[in-house]
Amino acid sequence: MTPDDIGREVRLMGEQARAASHALTKLSTAEKNTILLAMADALVAREPEILAANALDLAAADEAGLSTAMQDRLRLDSARIAAMATGIREVAALHDPTGEILREWTRPNGLRLQKKRTPIGVIGIIFESRPNVTADAAVLCFKTGNATILRGGKEAIHSNRAIAAALQEGGAPAGLPDHSIQLIPFTDRESVRHLCEMDQWLDLIIPRGGASLIEAVVSMARMPVIKHYDGICHVYVDQDADFDMAEAITINSKTQKPSVCNAAETLLVHRDIAATFVPQIVAALAAKNVEVRGDEAFRAFAGEAAVVPATEADWTTEYLDFILSAKVVDDLDAAIAHINRYGSHHTDSIVTRDEAAAAKFQLEVDSACVFWNCSTRFADGGEFGFGAEIGISTDKLHARGPMALEELCSYKYLVSGDGQVKG
Amino acid sequence: MTPDDIGREVRLMGEQARAASHALTKLSTAEKNTILLAMADALVAREPEILAANALDLAAADEAGLSTAMQDRLRLDSARIAAMATGIREVAALHDPTGEILREWTRPNGLRLQKKRTPIGVIGIIFESRPNVTADAAVLCFKTGNATILRGGKEAIHSNRAIAAALQEGGAPAGLPDHSIQLIPFTDRESVRHLCEMDQWLDLIIPRGGASLIEAVVSMARMPVIKHYDGICHVYVDQDADFDMAEAITINSKTQKPSVCNAAETLLVHRDIAATFVPQIVAALAAKNVEVRGDEAFRAFAGEAAVVPATEADWTTEYLDFILSAKVVDDLDAAIAHINRYGSHHTDSIVTRDEAAAAKFQLEVDSACVFWNCSTRFADGGEFGFGAEIGISTDKLHARGPMALEELCSYKYLVSGDGQVKG
Repeated sequence: MTPDDIGREVRLMGEQARAASHALTKLSTAEKNTILLAMADALVAREPEILAANALDLAAADEAGLSTAMQDRLRLDSARIAAMATGIREVAALHDPTGEILREWTRPNGLRLQKKRTPIGVIGIIFESRPNVTADAAVLCFKTGNATILRGGKEAIHSNRAIAAALQEGGAPAGLPDHSIQLIPFTDRESVRHLCEMDQWLDLIIPRGGASLIEAVVSMARMPVIKHYDGICHVYVDQDADFDMAEAITINSKTQKPSVCNAAETLLVHRDIAATFVPQIVAALAAKNVEVRGDEAFRAFAGEAAVVPATEADWTTEYLDFILSAKVVDDLDAAIAHINRYGSHHTDSIVTRDEAAAAKFQLEVDSACVFWNCSTRFADGGEFGFGAEIGISTDKLHARGPMALEELCSYKYLVSGDGQVKG
Repeated sequence: MTPDDIGREVRLMGEQARAASHALTKLSTAEKNTILLAMADALVAREPEILAANALDLAAADEAGLSTAMQDRLRLDSARIAAMATGIREVAALHDPTGEILREWTRPNGLRLQKKRTPIGVIGIIFESRPNVTADAAVLCFKTGNATILRGGKEAIHSNRAIAAALQEGGAPAGLPDHSIQLIPFTDRESVRHLCEMDQWLDLIIPRGGASLIEAVVSMARMPVIKHYDGICHVYVDQDADFDMAEAITINSKTQKPSVCNAAETLLVHRDIAATFVPQIVAALAAKNVEVRGDEAFRAFAGEAAVVPATEADWTTEYLDFILSAKVVDDLDAAIAHINRYGSHHTDSIVTRDEAAAAKFQLEVDSACVFWNCSTRFADGGEFGFGAEIGISTDKLHARGPMALEELCSYKYLVSGDGQVKG
């Protein structure tokens, strides 16, 4: 295929997706749920085809020398396929936010206004190696009446095709409109560029993957992009903290699952309690085999041997590992300033008994999730009770923090009159 | 100044605006309102300086041979300055949406969650010739706790500087944080590019102006852009319409103020009533000196002499003038399909007595404002009761339709616990 052919093909998918989005608007919640259950059944029924496709990807990965961790992300088995199907059934059971009347009111001239929640339209999802994203993302978008165009990484292309085929062909007999869920069959960079340029067909792009993928999409995209960047999350231990609670929250935020974006990367400690708390937390972190990288003051309180010196780069590094940067701050204002300067505006937690300090922290820290006396690990759509999430947005427009079904919706204004004209 | 100097200067303004946005977060509503009233007073007090600056712009405009319409947009006088000040006082009187708790709930583990409305942060406003945008936009952003960086057109640079100085220096003694409202003093294209690239400092850009300005910003911007594109608005007269109501709504939508985005540009008429309604509306439009451009069927019903033949381009043209394109459609589905294909997803109105037809139209037309039995001219923040608007968004993300104070806000999640860690 020439680059021109690819462009034509991708644009055609866009036009088809727009038509599908209009058809999706007419489906009732019950109809959508019936289709979702049929898609879940199809995934399970097609396990042999999906595993055979996955085997091709795994063989190619092995040949290309992909790391064990990458190969593990790629690998499907019965349990993982069953988990995908269960995930779809759970989405079917969730409340459908589309159609909700968010507000209604009447104007003095008698016009009746309703602000109604609607699908967004057509959503592009660009993702990397995990094939389960194909099902997860497509299904959340479908539940909210959106058409999707999926573009996965080349490592998972066979698995993605098999999963997309199961969703499409499983959903069709149950009433899934044609082209509601499309997978771009090309894995070259060119197809991403075309996707990013066709703002006449695509209302939103969500890149799911590392910073370089997101950067590339941000540079190219003409339509809105919702970004799920790194989590440089902080735990700040205030002068008025319960030390045991502070220790438990710090240890949990750092070590309960270090590889995820809501794990803590930096600990800030108020100077007035550092002499007592720093040795306590350094011992607790050592017991969990966490490497601590501290500023000069933190090291002095810890005993220098226990703590590696931090460099400026440590304050902006998402380790995703058993490493924690640590700093002593003069006061609450200094903690807030550090977080707003170096953090990624994802999730930050204060540990304190002082309600006024907590309120100030929650007001002034400019992050999606600002916590008081709990672990950063609770920044999650499931933990918030949203039932499912497509990611945690580090943007401030449209969706901030855990992004679930409501955030996959737009709205429109319905205005009804009896002949009103403007005077 | 070299291009490098300009870049450095614009980025410095961004960094300063971010600091200002943190200071703005701490202001109470009462403090912000006091500052707004001081800014309004300063505008009035500085009328001589503002008019002197405006005279420089007008002289340059005359020399450059700008059209009378352009010069009129540029012109300030006592009444226009007083209107700007009144506008600011009205914004002071509006409800402040920041700080509102949008939702609060408790999880089974005892965590208490609040979704709280917050400022967005730093907003860039790029606009063309009207100097009053300087005050209007800055003040709406300030009311919602956002810092602004304004970049106006070169035609109005002296006026814009004088207005910005009045706001800054008038607001400062009342407590306006430094750099809350900044005007880029450069009017070359390079400064727009720098603004569009500094996504570390700018959370949002709103371009206010023609399609070519918006296009340029969309191509360059790395941060979210909220677009206020054309209004290709439709009136659809259904088979079950009251003809006199349909005539009144069509005439009002087209002629009450043709130069604005919520004026109608296309009339669609159901085939079954065309023999009666088309002659009636053609006569009414002729009486208002509206040129009608019709498809073949419409011309046949009208008597061909009365109606110019429409070309394909007419269906996507925003005339902003006493011109209306007109088409006969076979049924409601055809009307909806035409609007979704050719419209700009701004505002469309159905005239009908049939509630089911209206409900279908309001469900399936994919526009920000979908009206039933009223003029398209009501698509306006003021008419909706929002008190003020920064524009009418044709986007679907974050803000759709009339964009007012609430849409200049983001939100954050505040989570409070008593030591919860994740198991």
